[in-house]
Parts: sequence; structure tokens; C-alpha cells
Amino acid sequence: MTWLAVPQDSPYGIQTLPYGVFTAADQPGRRRVGVRIGDAVLDAGAAARAVGSAAVLLEAGSLNPLMAAGRSLWREVRAALTEWLTDEAHRPAVEPCLLPLAEVELHLPFEVADYVDFYASEHHATNLGRIFRPGSEPLTPNWKHLPIGYHGRAGTVVVSGTPVVRPHGQRKAPTEPLPSFGPTRRLDIEAEVGFVVGTPSALGTAVPLADFREHVFGVCLLNDWSARDIQAWEYVPLGPFLGKSFATSVSPWVVPLDALEHARVAPPARDVEPLGYLDDRGGEPWGLDLAMEVALNGHRISRPPFATMYWTGAQQLAHLTANGASLRTGDLFASGTVSGPEPETRGALIELTWNGEHPIKLADGTARTFLEDGDEVVITATAPGPDGTRIGFGEVTGRIVP
Amino acid sequence: MTWLAVPQDSPYGIQTLPYGVFTAADQPGRRRVGVRIGDAVLDAGAAARAVGSAAVLLEAGSLNPLMAAGRSLWREVRAALTEWLTDEAHRPAVEPCLLPLAEVELHLPFEVADYVDFYASEHHATNLGRIFRPGSEPLTPNWKHLPIGYHGRAGTVVVSGTPVVRPHGQRKAPTEPLPSFGPTRRLDIEAEVGFVVGTPSALGTAVPLADFREHVFGVCLLNDWSARDIQAWEYVPLGPFLGKSFATSVSPWVVPLDALEHARVAPPARDVEPLGYLDDRGGEPWGLDLAMEVALNGHRISRPPFATMYWTGAQQLAHLTANGASLRTGDLFASGTVSGPEPETRGALIELTWNGEHPIKLADGTARTFLEDGDEVVITATAPGPDGTRIGFGEVTGRIVP
Repeated sequence: MTWLAVPQDSPYGIQTLPYGVFTAADQPGRRRVGVRIGDAVLDAGAAARAVGSAAVLLEAGSLNPLMAAGRSLWREVRAALTEWLTDEAHRPAVEPCLLPLAEVELHLPFEVADYVDFYASEHHATNLGRIFRPGSEPLTPNWKHLPIGYHGRAGTVVVSGTPVVRPHGQRKAPTEPLPSFGPTRRLDIEAEVGFVVGTPSALGTAVPLADFREHVFGVCLLNDWSARDIQAWEYVPLGPFLGKSFATSVSPWVVPLDALEHARVAPPARDVEPLGYLDDRGGEPWGLDLAMEVALNGHRISRPPFATMYWTGAQQLAHLTANGASLRTGDLFASGTVSGPEPETRGALIELTWNGEHPIKLADGTARTFLEDGDEVVITATAPGPDGTRIGFGEVTGRIVP
Repeated sequence: MTWLAVPQDSPYGIQTLPYGVFTAADQPGRRRVGVRIGDAVLDAGAAARAVGSAAVLLEAGSLNPLMAAGRSLWREVRAALTEWLTDEAHRPAVEPCLLPLAEVELHLPFEVADYVDFYASEHHATNLGRIFRPGSEPLTPNWKHLPIGYHGRAGTVVVSGTPVVRPHGQRKAPTEPLPSFGPTRRLDIEAEVGFVVGTPSALGTAVPLADFREHVFGVCLLNDWSARDIQAWEYVPLGPFLGKSFATSVSPWVVPLDALEHARVAPPARDVEPLGYLDDRGGEPWGLDLAMEVALNGHRISRPPFATMYWTGAQQLAHLTANGASLRTGDLFASGTVSGPEPETRGALIELTWNGEHPIKLADGTARTFLEDGDEVVITATAPGPDGTRIGFGEVTGRIVP
């Protein structure tokens, strides 16, 4: 139990301790590693100094040095933070290093190296197949043999709260003879979970399923904003490009994988036998029971269940490196849209409104097919922690500007 | 004319001055900015110090600081280098800063931010359409409306000479009922030209055609190694992923855009009117007359003519940013395979052998469909320079290892 006054049901109790990067008025412009506890942020580097501990990994302007240090150091640092925040003897030194969450500005928590987006929800892929390729099998023949993914734009990954400028691009409806250029008319969200790589790997070497936790530092929430009209026109044959690359928002907090031990669940039964490098039967299961929520202008529109994902993060990492591609500290790979089997658990507007044919009604009486200027989207999640606690992931938000 | 003994017909005379990064035995481990002249490398930072000039942009272990400095500084530095190497008065100070090319080790010249690969050769796209989608129109409906591209893996961009490990992955021939996992059986090359971004741009802002030279620092050669069997099985619907992400090789020299004034030519006539942001009629033409050559184990197998590319680098940059995606220093975008109209000008084995059906014969009597272990591929290029000179691009090489 922490010596801070954190409500027992807070998802940001001592069981969570997510990492972020912040600036505050006392040292404006200096980015510091912070750890969220309740509604406070611990200046981790200052706390380490205050208790006389080595602080070098926590003194950077991003999480990258800590992420690069490897799992045994991740565990050491997490154990030290837990001790500082629970042992009353540390309280005099550590308490002055706490800042109110409301008084800090949160930044992109790590420098993104490569960004990969998967497509791992069977329900999402099936829905999109039905919408985009009516009359044919909704899942492509490869879908159950490998986690389909593609590289996205790392340079436009932005922190939660960054305004999202409605992108321009080429749009061509099936009924139009020629494409036109202008602002997207079908701006969408994709509620996703992101995995953040800490430990790099060597070129030419695959990372087996069992080494997932040696490489993955933590988990964040992600909104893969999508311009569906731009995407539909451009994506054959080389995949999504400008329909996605204008912005990808991530939550400011990275939840350590070690905080998710109680969230681990078996993935859904697979009806196609996976090839050996993807076969997680008999190994550690890496399904994760995150309960996600999507709100539009303050009204909940979806509750995507991450535990329903067909492919796990461990399988995604094993696939991503199966050809010998190396990992770098800061690599980010995302799950793809999280959609469950029920209509109200779909993680994108294109599914929730079935390609815009059935607008959703918000509690304020307005209706939406796709996003309008001024709309704000908030994605949140919690997961089971020890002793009936919950693990909080913070939120990823964005408002559309023209 | 430089005071060095450089043969008049050398493509590395004073007209070229490409930038790279090297280490040498006198200061092992210290990466330095080098400029090639003839068969020598000028230690650019040391030369700046020797002549009493500001050296800060040239003192880094990569080209990124110089690239980030912007076009007016690029021009200043190039003018200074030209002066140091031509004015006899500078010779006593500068000559000791020259090292024999054979005695330096060349490294990746810049830190790659995002890597994008386009698909800008009409001949290549037509050939691949005929091979992969026989019976349908070879070009997809979008092809002549926009430069199709996708993001590749920045973390596996390697410098020329890095061995290429034959990647493993899922392969499924049309005749096989299920995919299997193993080394690719169809390892290919793609002879391409890469554009290296120096000046960044702001998120939410497009870079117009006319600003191409403000943002692009220079040009390199690139080999986009491709595992065709992995690619064919994985690429629907989200594009190439593991079939490409194992390695992309670039030449160690970046030729400044300012060295290519005499290489600029009008692009081919377009038979579809481009939308405004891609319309380069009446503006500065950015076709580039690079004469490329591809050799396999020392035997020339192709002469791809870069001047035949349908979409120019300026159009690619305008498209890449049309949705407001920002640029970072170190962004690399490549042309896609360069293939001309004649069979002997195709830039990939899949085209040269028509999907492996017609093996090519090498001058040593052996034949190839795709690459075998031990094979070495060398791509070179030159372009017209001032006064009948040629501009040399060095080479991008790679040998396949099992």
C-alpha cells in the first residue's frame, strides 16, 4: 500500500505505475520521466536522486534509455519505485518529488523508431471484408495463417491531446468517374492497443514467441485515425498510405508489461493450426483482458474487448521478426482495430455505422456517420490487476480541426 | 578544376562532391563526414578546421546536422568545398585531410527517419500487374492519378556492402494447399533511386511541388531486396511487409541535388491529367537522367533508365505530404523499381525472367531465375554533369548469405 492518499479503487494505485514524460512550470522546457500514482506524477529522476539511488536511466527526456536497458533493469526500477512509494521511511525524500497531474504537461513518452500496425481482430477484419469486398469471402486466404500488418509513419505518431487536422487527399467514390482532391469526408477512428519495444534485436535474427517479454517494455493505447475515402482509393495494391499517415495518437502513459500479469488470458481458439513460429499452444498465453471504451464528445459509443483478438502481441512480434528484421528501442507495433463480436463493441465508425449507412445516435441527440470538425474522441482502458485492483491505461484523445 | 590529380572523365570530379560517412585507421571508431573526390575521401570537418572555417555541421557522425541546416547552408558548404579543392592557396591546408578511398570504411550516411517506397515506373507496374494479375488490366485504376507508395522499415536500411541474409517466411505457391515456413525461394532485387530529406516540414502542412529542392538534400542508389514468394502470400490487403522488411541497401554516397542540375529532363508525357497538387506542367521539371546499371556476379544484367519514370521525386514528395504528414530530417523515399520499356532495361529479376519462366544467362555460362546464396548484386549509376562531365553515384552492393 502506498503512503499516498490514493483511493483503493483507483486504477492508478501502486499496482500500475505507468511511465510517461512531462514538463512542469518549476522547470519549463525540461522533459522529465514521470510515473503516475493516483492523481499525481512522480518526478522519477528527482526521486532517485532524493533517495540516493542511481538515476541515470530516469534522467532523460524520453523513456528510451530505460526502455533500452532491458528487462532485468525494468524490474529493478519498478521494484525501486514501488519501494519509494510504499516505504514510509522514503516518504520525506520522495514526497517533494510529486506533482499534481493537473499541473504537468504530458509529451510523447518515447521516440518512435518504426511503427507497424497489425490487423489482428477477426471481427474487425471480417466486417471490413464484408464492407469493402461484398460478395467475396470476408477474410483473405492468408488471414488465419499470419498476422497481417504493414508499416505506418513513425514521424506522425503524436501524443494524446494533439489536435488532428482533417487531412486532404484524393477521394473517389465508386459512383464518381474521376478522383477529386479535398478534405476527407470519411474521417474515422481505430481503437487499438500499442506494444512498445525496449530491447533491440540483431539483424538476421528472429525473436521467438517465448522472448516476447524480454523485448516488449510496455503497452499504450492508440488511435489510428483513418481517412476511409482516401484509403479506399489508394490502397490497392500496396496498402494504406496517406489514408493513415497524417496522424496516429498514443496515450501518454506506457504501462509496463510486468503490471499486466493478472490481465493475461488465453487467446480465442484458432480454427487454423498455426505454423511453428506462431504456435502459442503450450506456451505462455499473451491474450490480454483490456476493457476498452470509446467516447465521442463525451458519449460512449463502443466497448471493444481486447481479449477477443485472434493474434496476440507475442505472435505479432514473432511474425514481425521472422524474416530477420531487427528491432530497435522505440519500435511501436499496434494491434489493429479492436472489435468484438457484438455491434456495440466495434472499434471503428466504419463498422459501427456499417460504412456510413446506419448513423449512430449520440446521447446528446446528434447523429454521426464519420467524424465532424470539432468532434473529440477519447479512448480509455483498464485491465485486471492483483487483489481485485484495476490497471489504468490513461486515455488517448484527439479533437478534429478543419 | 581541382588541384587533385583526378582524371578528366572521372564521375567523381569537382562537379559531383557526394557526401558520406567514414571511419579510418587514424581515428578508429570515430565516424566522420567525408566528401568523395576522385579516388580520395576528404575529411570534411578536418578540412574546415584546417582552413579556419566553421566546421560544426561537418563534425557529426552522420549527415543529419548538415541535412537539417537547410538549402542555403547546403549551397554554402558545397561552395566552400569546391573552393578548398580548387584554390591552390588552400592546398597546403586541405591536402593532408584527404584519405585514399581504399583505406576508409563507409557507413550508413544518415540516420533514416521514415522510409517510403514508391512504385513510379509505368513499365515496372505494368509488368508486375501482368505477372500477378493476369487477365485483368495491368495498372490499377488509381495508378495514373497518384504515385502509389507505402511505408517500409527504416530500421533495416543498411549501407552498401552489408551481407543480406536470405529471409525466412511463409511461402505458398498457388498450387500448394497450405503455406510453409522456410527460406525464400524467390529472392529478388529492385534497382531504385532514393531521395533523402533534409529540411523538415510541419505537421498539417503540405509541401508543394515547387518546394522540392528546399526539402530534398540529395539522391542515393537503393536496392529494395524482395522475397517474392513471401510478398505474394502476405500482401493482400495491406501491402508488402515481411517480403521487403528484412533489408534495404543504400549507396554510401549521397549526391547533392545541386549536382544534378544538368541531369534534369522533362518527365514522360502523361496520358491522364494530374490533379493540381501533382501537376508539374509549366513548373520546373524533375525528371532525372540517371543511367543505371545492374550487375550480378560481375555480369551486367540490366540498364534501367531513370528518365523514363512516370512520377518524379517532386511529385512523390508533394503526394507524401498532401495529407499534412510532416517530414523529418533523414526521411528517405525511393522511386520504386526502375524499369524501362525494353526487356534489358528492367530493374528486377521477376521482370527480367518473367516470374522465373525465362532464366537469364550470365556471361559466365550460369543461369538465374532468382538470387542464389553467394550471389552479389551491384547497382551503379551516372548522370550528366556540366561541360560534358558525368556525375557518379557510387554503387550499392550486397551479397546473399544463407
